[in-house]
Amino acid sequence: MTFDPVSDPASYLARHLGPDSAEEKVMLDKLGYGSIDELIDAALPADIRASATPQTAEALSERDAQAKLRSYADQNTVLRSFYGQGFSDTITPPVIRRGVVEDPGWYTAYTPYQPEISQGRLEALLNFQTMISELTGLPIANASLLDEASAVAESIGLMARAKKKGSRVILDARLHPQVLAVATERARAIDLEVEITRLSDELVGEDLCGVVIAYPGTEGDVTDPRKVIESIHDRGGLATVVTDPLALFLLESPGELGADIAVGNSQRFGVPLFYGGPHAAFMAVADNLKRQMPGRLVGVSVDADGNPAYRLALQTREQHIRRERATSNICTAQALLAVTASMYAVYHGADGLKAIADRIHSLASSFAETLRAGGVTVLHDAFFDTVAVRVGDGGAQGVVDKLADAGFLVRAIDADTVGVSFGESANAGDVHVLADAFCDATVVDGDTAIPEAVARTTETLTHPIFSSIHSETQMLRYLRTLSDKDLALDRTMIPLGSCTMKLNPTAGMETITWPGFANIHPFAPDEQAKGWIELIEELEGWLASLTGYAKVSVQPNAGSQGELAGLLAIRRYHVANGDTERDICVVPASAHGTNAASATLANLRVVVVATADDGSIDLDDLDAKLEQHGDRVAAIMITYPSTHGVFEDTVRTVCEKVHAVGGQVYIDGANMNALTGLAQPGKFGGDVSHLNLHKTFTIPHGGGGPGVGPVAVAEHLVPFLPTDPLGTNPDEEAPEGTGVPISSSRYGSAGVLPISWAYIAMMGSEGLARATANAILGANYLARSLADSFPILYTGKNDLVAHECILDLRELTKQSGVTAADVAKRLIDYGFHAPTLAFPVAGTLMVEPTESEDLAELDRFIEAMVSIRAEIQEIIDGKVDYEASVLRHAPYTAWSVSGDDWDHEFTREQAAWPVPGLRRTKYFPPVRRLDEAYGDRNLVCSCPPPEAFDFSDDTSADSDSEEN
Amino acid sequence: MTFDPVSDPASYLARHLGPDSAEEKVMLDKLGYGSIDELIDAALPADIRASATPQTAEALSERDAQAKLRSYADQNTVLRSFYGQGFSDTITPPVIRRGVVEDPGWYTAYTPYQPEISQGRLEALLNFQTMISELTGLPIANASLLDEASAVAESIGLMARAKKKGSRVILDARLHPQVLAVATERARAIDLEVEITRLSDELVGEDLCGVVIAYPGTEGDVTDPRKVIESIHDRGGLATVVTDPLALFLLESPGELGADIAVGNSQRFGVPLFYGGPHAAFMAVADNLKRQMPGRLVGVSVDADGNPAYRLALQTREQHIRRERATSNICTAQALLAVTASMYAVYHGADGLKAIADRIHSLASSFAETLRAGGVTVLHDAFFDTVAVRVGDGGAQGVVDKLADAGFLVRAIDADTVGVSFGESANAGDVHVLADAFCDATVVDGDTAIPEAVARTTETLTHPIFSSIHSETQMLRYLRTLSDKDLALDRTMIPLGSCTMKLNPTAGMETITWPGFANIHPFAPDEQAKGWIELIEELEGWLASLTGYAKVSVQPNAGSQGELAGLLAIRRYHVANGDTERDICVVPASAHGTNAASATLANLRVVVVATADDGSIDLDDLDAKLEQHGDRVAAIMITYPSTHGVFEDTVRTVCEKVHAVGGQVYIDGANMNALTGLAQPGKFGGDVSHLNLHKTFTIPHGGGGPGVGPVAVAEHLVPFLPTDPLGTNPDEEAPEGTGVPISSSRYGSAGVLPISWAYIAMMGSEGLARATANAILGANYLARSLADSFPILYTGKNDLVAHECILDLRELTKQSGVTAADVAKRLIDYGFHAPTLAFPVAGTLMVEPTESEDLAELDRFIEAMVSIRAEIQEIIDGKVDYEASVLRHAPYTAWSVSGDDWDHEFTREQAAWPVPGLRRTKYFPPVRRLDEAYGDRNLVCSCPPPEAFDFSDDTSADSDSEEN
Repeated sequence: MTFDPVSDPASYLARHLGPDSAEEKVMLDKLGYGSIDELIDAALPADIRASATPQTAEALSERDAQAKLRSYADQNTVLRSFYGQGFSDTITPPVIRRGVVEDPGWYTAYTPYQPEISQGRLEALLNFQTMISELTGLPIANASLLDEASAVAESIGLMARAKKKGSRVILDARLHPQVLAVATERARAIDLEVEITRLSDELVGEDLCGVVIAYPGTEGDVTDPRKVIESIHDRGGLATVVTDPLALFLLESPGELGADIAVGNSQRFGVPLFYGGPHAAFMAVADNLKRQMPGRLVGVSVDADGNPAYRLALQTREQHIRRERATSNICTAQALLAVTASMYAVYHGADGLKAIADRIHSLASSFAETLRAGGVTVLHDAFFDTVAVRVGDGGAQGVVDKLADAGFLVRAIDADTVGVSFGESANAGDVHVLADAFCDATVVDGDTAIPEAVARTTETLTHPIFSSIHSETQMLRYLRTLSDKDLALDRTMIPLGSCTMKLNPTAGMETITWPGFANIHPFAPDEQAKGWIELIEELEGWLASLTGYAKVSVQPNAGSQGELAGLLAIRRYHVANGDTERDICVVPASAHGTNAASATLANLRVVVVATADDGSIDLDDLDAKLEQHGDRVAAIMITYPSTHGVFEDTVRTVCEKVHAVGGQVYIDGANMNALTGLAQPGKFGGDVSHLNLHKTFTIPHGGGGPGVGPVAVAEHLVPFLPTDPLGTNPDEEAPEGTGVPISSSRYGSAGVLPISWAYIAMMGSEGLARATANAILGANYLARSLADSFPILYTGKNDLVAHECILDLRELTKQSGVTAADVAKRLIDYGFHAPTLAFPVAGTLMVEPTESEDLAELDRFIEAMVSIRAEIQEIIDGKVDYEASVLRHAPYTAWSVSGDDWDHEFTREQAAWPVPGLRRTKYFPPVRRLDEAYGDRNLVCSCPPPEAFDFSDDTSADSDSEEN
Repeated sequence: MTFDPVSDPASYLARHLGPDSAEEKVMLDKLGYGSIDELIDAALPADIRASATPQTAEALSERDAQAKLRSYADQNTVLRSFYGQGFSDTITPPVIRRGVVEDPGWYTAYTPYQPEISQGRLEALLNFQTMISELTGLPIANASLLDEASAVAESIGLMARAKKKGSRVILDARLHPQVLAVATERARAIDLEVEITRLSDELVGEDLCGVVIAYPGTEGDVTDPRKVIESIHDRGGLATVVTDPLALFLLESPGELGADIAVGNSQRFGVPLFYGGPHAAFMAVADNLKRQMPGRLVGVSVDADGNPAYRLALQTREQHIRRERATSNICTAQALLAVTASMYAVYHGADGLKAIADRIHSLASSFAETLRAGGVTVLHDAFFDTVAVRVGDGGAQGVVDKLADAGFLVRAIDADTVGVSFGESANAGDVHVLADAFCDATVVDGDTAIPEAVARTTETLTHPIFSSIHSETQMLRYLRTLSDKDLALDRTMIPLGSCTMKLNPTAGMETITWPGFANIHPFAPDEQAKGWIELIEELEGWLASLTGYAKVSVQPNAGSQGELAGLLAIRRYHVANGDTERDICVVPASAHGTNAASATLANLRVVVVATADDGSIDLDDLDAKLEQHGDRVAAIMITYPSTHGVFEDTVRTVCEKVHAVGGQVYIDGANMNALTGLAQPGKFGGDVSHLNLHKTFTIPHGGGGPGVGPVAVAEHLVPFLPTDPLGTNPDEEAPEGTGVPISSSRYGSAGVLPISWAYIAMMGSEGLARATANAILGANYLARSLADSFPILYTGKNDLVAHECILDLRELTKQSGVTAADVAKRLIDYGFHAPTLAFPVAGTLMVEPTESEDLAELDRFIEAMVSIRAEIQEIIDGKVDYEASVLRHAPYTAWSVSGDDWDHEFTREQAAWPVPGLRRTKYFPPVRRLDEAYGDRNLVCSCPPPEAFDFSDDTSADSDSEEN
């Protein structure tokens, strides 16, 4: 595990690791170990250590890794996409591609849980919500969901909960096949009865909790959903409308038609096809459903100075979700893509988007009319962008092949029907080529194919943000202004326990927008996606090796989905074995809330096992629970190293005990950054794990997504891995002994997988192990350096932690009144993003430095924490009153410390410049501390009017005094 | 010229223009015109208006323009480059590519004339200077030159000036052919006698002002230059060593060997081949030559608070250069590429670069030894990276072709000799393939081929900056920290008169790093560069159409070089016509200093013609001068619209008068942003013009380069356009009736030409005209809005200005003491980059808004200027003393307004928050006003030690008081 960065300048390892050899020595000296190997031997229980370094591949240089990725991209065939089926051709404006998707200021940001340093991305996400709300005609939209299929599944869950009656849901047969495939199995998993039918008329039967209506349908057909909506409302159920946001410029809004919920995919707002994802799905709901909305919701509140400020109104973070009472397990969503889609809307504006929609519709109409004139049967008279053509005699594939030769990708809806779906880059010349494949065509214009009954009459995108930014210069500056408000990894360490905010290598990031990767439709035939498939299979193989499992599926497009996929695999395994009664999931008290939520979605009942005083699983309680539930135990879900940041040395024992009663062991991979290359969950007791590629494997957090949550399983669970959503028959339950689809496309968020591929390829097997060792080194260095100031709550053997540590503030809070939240906010003044707050233990901060932070940055953090500790001591010593303290009022904006009035007991310099290093580089948050209570009382989830930001009458530099 | 951005959302025009239709109307109303056509009719003299819009091509969308560019890139053949000859294979680290070359924060920045808002790029350029100084062993290095060939030409000029004796210069025959081609003609143009000989021994003859020694030579051979250096020193001359910065890790530094000057190209420090450029050439000199250094030099000074701060120590800006006493005409250099090269060095560090150099040398040695073992003749025993192989029997081309088939580009040095030059990405496998082309080879290792006499013994890159940043995270944050210090176009308007800081469209910017463009060697055979050649010829054609000339050459890689090329064309035209006595260049008093400097370099004597009271050329004085000099007049150089920002209506008359005495008319294209699409210099009297693609045609300024300065000529001057530097015989003077080469490669800075191509393609002919009209609209709106506050110095007919205007502060300065510089610095506090200061008239500010600024940004600027005017009025009214005024002490850092002490008579809010809009977004400069005098007294041009930035003992928030 030794390395010398100098001897091979092409080695990427030295670029990824923060400390160099000299810095490592300083850190090891602090801990009293002679080498990093010695430290790992002391920290990691011997019985879980991998006997040999798990093999991936020999390390490649950045250049060679990119060369290999380019060869993969070159093996994909980029056709012009007229396929549709939920994924449309769109044009990403270059200023947005470079300014968001390719900008570290945006993509390295964390989820905006700390609102004071997240105002930029919160504003962008609020634009997204406002856009979705205005388009759908429903008052509350969330800040994105994972994909259209899971969004429909979430809407079904929401309808079932909200109505609390009926166990039957009707899905429109006109939904996209992949949506039906995923949503039906998700509904069946929670014992809902599912019916698929062509929804156009009144409903029959009772016991209905809801319907899901396609608007338009997968064949492009547009029908008026009013009757169905009225009919379900008459029966006391709810209606979800699945729609296309661009179509809504021509179609009346779902809200106006009476829908309770609208969901869909915003991909065609400038987000590349990405071979299936990541794309931001959306959900908007009626006002009475807002408190049940899954996912994240940005809201408007005020800061301590009374100025408008944004925040997450509903926080579905792991520790905030309601565990076994949860109704959704969504944490990470698709923030970066929601930002992209919202900026696309801001840039084109209401008029521009309407013009795009009109042009697309006019091309589709012309195409349909041209075919009709040529004697060809067009299936539907009413459509927006997609025309279904009956070719008969099994001729669909022939047309598809002919057009592929001409460079066009179209869809064989069935053997006799071809679907042609127009996107943003289509033009009149394309109509000619496309029509020619069906008949000897003369292109003619078509009339509108939007039925009058559903033609949009209501205004949309009326907020000024959708008409104020039209030039590239304006957009360039808007993006910069927003991202400048935020603290991301490109400016500071983000020491978040359980979230592994480490370097996102540029060499991988650069490749995702290459056309050979970005412009492939998820349903392109395999021979057009050879490069993609080879890359993905190689990556899955590497992940299997690293985790010690038999097989991996990258289909789950977030950690939450990986958990669900894993638990469904377990559940279906038991059922296939006849163990239908195994429905209990044992979860330690310290588990992520997501674990319990996922178990609930997999129809498992959660039984909590207690935590011992040392933070480990209480073995006696485990024995008791296993004894009590015995052959009803489906699984235990544990996190390793535990959420307490400790390598428990009983993990093998725990696994054995659960196996002994016939249960399966689910090891949550959230903390794989403490294991990769050193230990394999599949080898020390796990049957299933999920990984977070956006934690350990360097996919950036993107301000709250995209994530990727591959599921890894042992041999006996391989048959239960997620299946291709196009390979199932949604009318029937998935056959026993198989898996179920979990995402809209076979490989989920394929588009970002080259990032993890590049990381693993550049690090090599030994390099990955070394990164893990350095992560453990960094955490222990921090823990040891801070222990005199803040007690470390838990440690493992030799008094060492794993890759993170919990700083216990509870005693200090008692003595001083200073809360962990005060410390988190105060860190902003020192230029830091706060550690994880109040998870897994209230009143604490969990710190994870990762291997990418160098010694200087670690020391800068230690300096800040020690300085804050001294600020607390002044209160304890009675020199300062808590309410008047610098901590209580943190953080401080530039305005607040440079206005003419200053009536604090502490000085301006104490507020803004507590350590000298800030003189070299200083970040000021754009707002002061958020007033969470105000926001809770006044839930506003779309953009405030511009007047809200008029400061011309505001002369008060600091209004703290009013508050005290 | 009407357009409606909404009707065609794919139209790029609406993205490029700042104001939309509604904003345009507001602006036109202010001016009292009913339409933009009316305004243009009123502003532009009818007799120069183009009869029809000059045609380029129909406007393409961003997507279609990129598709076309991609097809050009695909027509280029990217081979692995082992060609050498001054351009080497190198690897750009992705974090630097994305973080510098592709980052608007870096590339949209202006030249750092305003040091307070330029500390980031000044630090990066200082790193460059420190790197060059340490590598060359000479104490003073500048912040880049344009290319190696012109750098050698500059060094010859410097030697000739510095010694003031001798008219003969000896050039080493071992210099690269393109260097000899350019440097000899530049020397001959100023009447130096040039001799080319193989420099290895003592010199003969006297009357020598200097020698230029290749180290290594173009065939890769390394010789000890000491004897030659001693010999020239004995004769009272100076020695320039032309070197390779990577070789200097193995070769003793030129300074240590006694050289007075070292020049070279830093391209191989991470800058792509770019088909020839842009690349940052360098020059370092002995201490006694520092005041004669051409180009820009960053120096260290202090700010008003006494903290270290950077600035340009020698400013060679147009208005600062010494006109006819000038010795160099360089203005724009290659700042962005110098930053890139310096960051490459910072990232690899001294050890990393040494390792790269060692590896390259070891591969070259192995290759040479393998050939020798195979019985092949290797020409030189001593070399660094390049091996010259004698193949005999005219077999060189055969080997070149064979290797091309294998994917390798090597050089046919002559019919019998092949040069193989190793670069950063070469590996052992390559040695095998390459050797195989010469003989049946078994690869063997080679000993070092560096002669002991010149092996490097002195340390290099010892400054801590070259060992403190090794991880990608550190580099990412370093780049962000630096660029955050600076104000570039991505945050604010940069209203620089004469510099046209307009939008740099991302659609064009994105394409320059595509491998098909970036990785082509400038001397690749034409069949491997088909796409490049077609693109360039198309661009040259468009530029010819827009300027109304017969032909354009893009070879000049800066405006200064375009001027020189144009004047040399005129001079050579006269000589070819037998008019050898025509050596006078008439230049208006208001001309850019560069004009006179270029004339001097073309061996023309400058005669100044006076300016009339209205700012136009004084026709009476012109008549007098023409009368006086008559048949000695070679040319007049005018700028149109004039540097006074006015459309003079006498321009045709001026041209006719000069033509009448047999002179040629040079129309400086610096202000083409006021003409493009509306008027053509080639049609209203010009014989030659140069363009600044980095002004009018959207190549970004890059913080001081790259620039591109195409030269455009009328039919009779076509034969005198720049020639291919590889197509000449430098031993002899260029034949009469031809042109001379001006840059190191045929197309100069080809690498950035796709930016201008994309701009012209996306705008279309009408769009370009519309952009010009909007530029005129914006300038007039500003002029009218500011006229009540600051007198507009000059206006043309109908009281209108062209695309810029001069605000006259001289009367206000008299009344208040507030200088134009005070206003420029004060604008920083309002978040603006200053306008052009003191050019063309001392005591004034010249403002050019460009068409890309929207109404809100223009109004924000007007608000700032009006507010500053009120601050001045308070002094005039006696309410505030100038020395105690907020203007006198501007700008204010965050520290200075939020420290505990405040002893100014104005308030903190007056200092930092003078208008409410700043509350939404506020830029604080990292330093206070630069102390220029201190820097002049203490010239320090390399990085200060880190301790200089230790603020731990500094408790003073504001030290103004000490200064007063």
